[in-house]
Amino acid sequence: MTIQTRLVDYESGGHTFEGMLAWDATAAGLRPGVLVAHTIAGRSAHEEGRAKRLAEMGYVGFAMDVYGKGTQSTDLDRNRAMMDALRDDRPELQRRLLAGLACLRQQPEVDGASTAAIGFCVGGLSVLDIARTGADVAGVVSLHGIVVPPGNTVDNRVNAKVLALHGWEDPLATPEEVVGLAAELTSMGADWQIHAYGNTTHAFTNPAADDWDGGKKYDADADRRSWAATENFLSELFGS
Amino acid sequence: MTIQTRLVDYESGGHTFEGMLAWDATAAGLRPGVLVAHTIAGRSAHEEGRAKRLAEMGYVGFAMDVYGKGTQSTDLDRNRAMMDALRDDRPELQRRLLAGLACLRQQPEVDGASTAAIGFCVGGLSVLDIARTGADVAGVVSLHGIVVPPGNTVDNRVNAKVLALHGWEDPLATPEEVVGLAAELTSMGADWQIHAYGNTTHAFTNPAADDWDGGKKYDADADRRSWAATENFLSELFGS
Repeated sequence: MTIQTRLVDYESGGHTFEGMLAWDATAAGLRPGVLVAHTIAGRSAHEEGRAKRLAEMGYVGFAMDVYGKGTQSTDLDRNRAMMDALRDDRPELQRRLLAGLACLRQQPEVDGASTAAIGFCVGGLSVLDIARTGADVAGVVSLHGIVVPPGNTVDNRVNAKVLALHGWEDPLATPEEVVGLAAELTSMGADWQIHAYGNTTHAFTNPAADDWDGGKKYDADADRRSWAATENFLSELFGS
Repeated sequence: MTIQTRLVDYESGGHTFEGMLAWDATAAGLRPGVLVAHTIAGRSAHEEGRAKRLAEMGYVGFAMDVYGKGTQSTDLDRNRAMMDALRDDRPELQRRLLAGLACLRQQPEVDGASTAAIGFCVGGLSVLDIARTGADVAGVVSLHGIVVPPGNTVDNRVNAKVLALHGWEDPLATPEEVVGLAAELTSMGADWQIHAYGNTTHAFTNPAADDWDGGKKYDADADRRSWAATENFLSELFGS
């Protein structure tokens, strides 16, 4: 196995975005492609690391970007402001996400008919939004995702299988909101699963998170369990 | 691998109970023991089949009994009445469950320091009650379990890791009750997980269940996913 990476540009609405593709250069043939949607901080080593892990699992990982080329985790205040704007304009967020998906599908290593998406924090919101658009992806995995519905997808049918991995003490997604997500996904015809982890906050996959009182703390158990659930889910999607 | 079984009697409160032990006769050494707690119908081919599957996975499975020797699924009305009585006397149910656990620990194939319990329907309630007593078991898995708390365990600390696998449309465990279980387990200090499956009813592991309107229907996806989650969980507990 030899994991290689390259940066790939793509366009949406006159903006240029940049993602990092990761794949096993020793593997032959087309492979399923898995988007990795970033947190509020923008595309970072966290998402790129997961894209590489996906490559090690036999997929093509793509740490995508919804902020714009050159914005990678260099200015947190600016990036937070960009995400705030996108959370106020979910159709625009959805367009950028679908542009990243289209870019992944076009890569020569990727079987464009076999795609999925995973995401962390607002990246979880992002992949749930991909599903909510009715996009033809096999599945999405939200890890400590924000679950607030976008408002423009209520009449859609969700085609993707959905897996939401959630820390029960996450202040950014309350039990009431998670119960609401269940009802929303059911109403949209989704094949869905929600895994809740007790005594677990937001950001449980981020080793740098260390603020229990602020509701953002790494949790090794939840990190390991959520990744095992993600692996099982992708195996179910792709028979791998 | 050669899976063998034997019936084992045990006593509690002057009553005699009977469980079925399953193990791989070609394996050497002591193995973790996993209780299988039965549904309202009593110990049946369903629980015995799961005990054999557990034996194939390298454990010793024990399809236990809380009704009494000779009651195995032969008279559903009688068995329902027995479970109703036990649900009204949870301390008695707990004594019978712990007697089954003690019996499993004493079997010569079993490492008595490494035990877990899984259960279906009221067997899910049963294994949650084992955890609620504070019993020294590594973990419990409730599959479409009833989650109503027993009332006599509120001050206990849960030592077992807890995994509850739940169909979101289960009329016997409503979303409100499941949210209540989360709060209860948190208050008792448990390491807990709840996996909710959308569009899934009670009895989703039972191939004979075929009553969507009545809230009891087999679901092949949820059956497969819940068993994979159970396998992962047991592997985490026992490093196997």
